[in-house]
Amino acid sequence: MPALVALSPAAFLDVLAREGTRIEAVLDRLVDETARPMETVRPPRIVAAMRHAVLGGGKRIRPFLMIEAARLFGTDGEGVARAAAALEMLHCYSLVHDDLPQMDDDDLRRGRPTVHRAFDEATAILAGDALLTLAFDTMADPATHADPAVRADLVLRLARASGVGGMVGGQMLDLTAEGRWSADGKPTKLSDAEIRRLQAMKTGALLRFPLEAGAVMAGASAADVARLGRFGAIVGLAFQIADDLLDVEATAEAMGKATGKDAARGKGTLVALHGIPAMHAELDRLIAAAAKELAPWDERAATLLAAAHFIAERQS
Amino acid sequence: MPALVALSPAAFLDVLAREGTRIEAVLDRLVDETARPMETVRPPRIVAAMRHAVLGGGKRIRPFLMIEAARLFGTDGEGVARAAAALEMLHCYSLVHDDLPQMDDDDLRRGRPTVHRAFDEATAILAGDALLTLAFDTMADPATHADPAVRADLVLRLARASGVGGMVGGQMLDLTAEGRWSADGKPTKLSDAEIRRLQAMKTGALLRFPLEAGAVMAGASAADVARLGRFGAIVGLAFQIADDLLDVEATAEAMGKATGKDAARGKGTLVALHGIPAMHAELDRLIAAAAKELAPWDERAATLLAAAHFIAERQS
Repeated sequence: MPALVALSPAAFLDVLAREGTRIEAVLDRLVDETARPMETVRPPRIVAAMRHAVLGGGKRIRPFLMIEAARLFGTDGEGVARAAAALEMLHCYSLVHDDLPQMDDDDLRRGRPTVHRAFDEATAILAGDALLTLAFDTMADPATHADPAVRADLVLRLARASGVGGMVGGQMLDLTAEGRWSADGKPTKLSDAEIRRLQAMKTGALLRFPLEAGAVMAGASAADVARLGRFGAIVGLAFQIADDLLDVEATAEAMGKATGKDAARGKGTLVALHGIPAMHAELDRLIAAAAKELAPWDERAATLLAAAHFIAERQS
Repeated sequence: MPALVALSPAAFLDVLAREGTRIEAVLDRLVDETARPMETVRPPRIVAAMRHAVLGGGKRIRPFLMIEAARLFGTDGEGVARAAAALEMLHCYSLVHDDLPQMDDDDLRRGRPTVHRAFDEATAILAGDALLTLAFDTMADPATHADPAVRADLVLRLARASGVGGMVGGQMLDLTAEGRWSADGKPTKLSDAEIRRLQAMKTGALLRFPLEAGAVMAGASAADVARLGRFGAIVGLAFQIADDLLDVEATAEAMGKATGKDAARGKGTLVALHGIPAMHAELDRLIAAAAKELAPWDERAATLLAAAHFIAERQS
């Protein structure tokens, strides 16, 4: 088979922007003040906070991965866009809660005040809870997929990826490693394996999920779902390494949020453990591994490979 | 048809205790440190906080209502007990978050320290998030019901009952009515209709849900699901009025949590609006209305009617 060539960066950014606009429109429709069947009213203040959290920012990389995974099997439409928007809601809830003073204590997110700064802490907690709930609501809604078995599967996969044994558990491990509950209050020195496990939970699971979910929605075989899942796990690791590199190398201005915080907290990252050059080399290895997983789809996977490049090489 | 007679209070308490023990056992199995498929690890500290929130307390009235609703149509088994436990997880997450200093600021719950007092605020936020997620996980799990259409329907109904247009939205309305975000910081005088709407969202939706869900799991007709839903709405209102009466009449010792807080906050309740005697009369009217909804099932509904009595007349 011919070597897979990624979509060019410029062409990729075009597709990413177009899909981002589409996801934004779906989020705008789903997160509004109109009460749905079996609801009473949607109070304006909490809807405003939810909209602050989900609209007008973000690269929408997770939704994009889901849309492209479904496209690989010929499925493209409103249902996938809804599921992709649901995932973005869940991602945004996690940012709202993680930004709280009790957790990571961030004032800035995507260049704007975090929800608890723009509103207040009670509203931020509730808006996060409501976004998490609306994510599962959207996944389970018949408008998202005609087959209830697929909808139930999406809910179960998303819950496992984001719950106590996934993203939320990863955040817990991260706070624990900061030394919050250790006898001496000092950060824990994590091993390479411990850091990888923590990151696979905290950020990896929600980057892997869209690739599997898109394939599931498109009726892909179990083998293909698993293969895209492996690609997703690679992308998740690359995302985190790129993030850690940016925390060391980038400015707060470029990132739209505080940088240098991980090092200040003594947070264990692979970059801190192995150094910057080793991690740039690791990213190259990950890109090669990603291309290998996508090879069976040859040029149809050019956009997904470009996404992997984009994630590994992003500057903000 | 003969007038429906409720199970005796003593016999009812026996059934309630037996089912409570069963639900406790299911929760003990579901909320543990064993990672499930598609999970990585379940960190001990968050699992401990989740267990503190869900085990060893509570009357389990919501799970009980689901089990009895399913039983009305001849369904009784592990699947319903799992769904009932999922609902209890969701209920307990809402208590954990509502108890936070940013919200209702309670130190005591069921006679024990609240999660953020027994652990800390970050752990409480995450444990709540994880319980909410695990509730949807459990509903979507094939072990809960063989039919994926039923599982997806349970997820959707639970999300609508508990999200922005249900329970979470109701908590938002409640905090708003306290005057947190008003110009003068004073509580809002709510009308009778506004109080009923707020309470239908904040507490009613999660008491109505189990009756509809139990019927759905048992394959009941749409008309029967709707009838049990109306019974659930009545029970929900009775629950809240009884709660408001207890806040005025009971001692903290009997309740295992602080009392008199609503009045101290100038919180609008039907009791404050209409007085104690009028609300005792309203409870009698609600019991009669509840019995009317259950009449078609005659003595098979004796336990559900006893549950309505228990809820309306409870002393703690």
